[in-house]
Amino acid sequence: MKFSPLVDELIESLRCLPGVGPKSAQRMAFQLLERNRKAGQKLANALERSMSEVGHCQACRTFTEQELCPICSSPKRGNAGVICVVETPADVLAIEAGGHFMGRYFVLLGHLSPLDGVGPDELGLELLEQHLSSEDVTELILATNPTVEGDATAHFIADIARRHNVVISRIAHGVPVGGELEYVDSTTLALSFNGRIPL
Amino acid sequence: MKFSPLVDELIESLRCLPGVGPKSAQRMAFQLLERNRKAGQKLANALERSMSEVGHCQACRTFTEQELCPICSSPKRGNAGVICVVETPADVLAIEAGGHFMGRYFVLLGHLSPLDGVGPDELGLELLEQHLSSEDVTELILATNPTVEGDATAHFIADIARRHNVVISRIAHGVPVGGELEYVDSTTLALSFNGRIPL
Repeated sequence: MKFSPLVDELIESLRCLPGVGPKSAQRMAFQLLERNRKAGQKLANALERSMSEVGHCQACRTFTEQELCPICSSPKRGNAGVICVVETPADVLAIEAGGHFMGRYFVLLGHLSPLDGVGPDELGLELLEQHLSSEDVTELILATNPTVEGDATAHFIADIARRHNVVISRIAHGVPVGGELEYVDSTTLALSFNGRIPL
Repeated sequence: MKFSPLVDELIESLRCLPGVGPKSAQRMAFQLLERNRKAGQKLANALERSMSEVGHCQACRTFTEQELCPICSSPKRGNAGVICVVETPADVLAIEAGGHFMGRYFVLLGHLSPLDGVGPDELGLELLEQHLSSEDVTELILATNPTVEGDATAHFIADIARRHNVVISRIAHGVPVGGELEYVDSTTLALSFNGRIPL
């Protein structure tokens, strides 16, 4: 027994958050109790509702408490005929932050990983194929992570998509903007030479 | 609109936690939604209950949902006749981790800071004086932080306590165990020379 049972329980519960150890959990609990009970109540409420109500978008599989997420239900986004395949909902946010992509997304919620039991079914590829066959989709952009698993998943999906009448592309590998060549790894550098663009 | 309203609200609410920025909040929300809804529910529940039920111990002012905290209500701890004055509930935990102190605590929940409107009343010094006069308290250990404010608060409390028949002491300043002299600041080093102990 370190503290009162309820305070102990709060500290212990906060440790379910990623990157929060015993000391941070303690600091968070005390900060909320001392200075910000209203925000704590609000967080409790948001957590309670999110954990029970948030499901997946019926069209793109990202998180949403509605049937369709705001992007899939937006009439502006549906007509582009382009679907961008990403691994996680966070990737959707990262791409949306740029504001350059005006099509729709398909979120795999992971990547192919047979050893962990993640196959085509878990990634919802059947649903993706329904989109490809039934809708007016003209292009499929594969924006899975630039890792071995992400590349393998992209190639697997490309094989499926080839059966349908769509242009298939993979996002470009190369040197990130603002980086220094000196610190870029040799594989990325080699890929950026292979993918060079005429000026 | 970045996401569905409820997911946005969850991410925004998580930012009330200290040290959690927009990116961490997003990571936390997705981690809970993806992998740990049960823990999220438990956290919501603990938060909800803590924010409304946790108050302060009637005797020592630390956080507790009961009238007296486990330390104040323990018969083993009450008889020692020693009260240790600290600034925050976290300080109680830090001292309890050592397991060497067997008296009771008094938590100021801050330090004297006239500019911020924190005076003797806010620190509950009246309650502390009640303890000093009515109970069989023989010693008062001042364990406020070794800062200017903490020292000032300690001296202020010592002046009050002198009216009562108790031994008053301040925790020792000196070099921390396991540290290297080379990296200890000169004030601490000077204090550790002044407070040297005959062997």
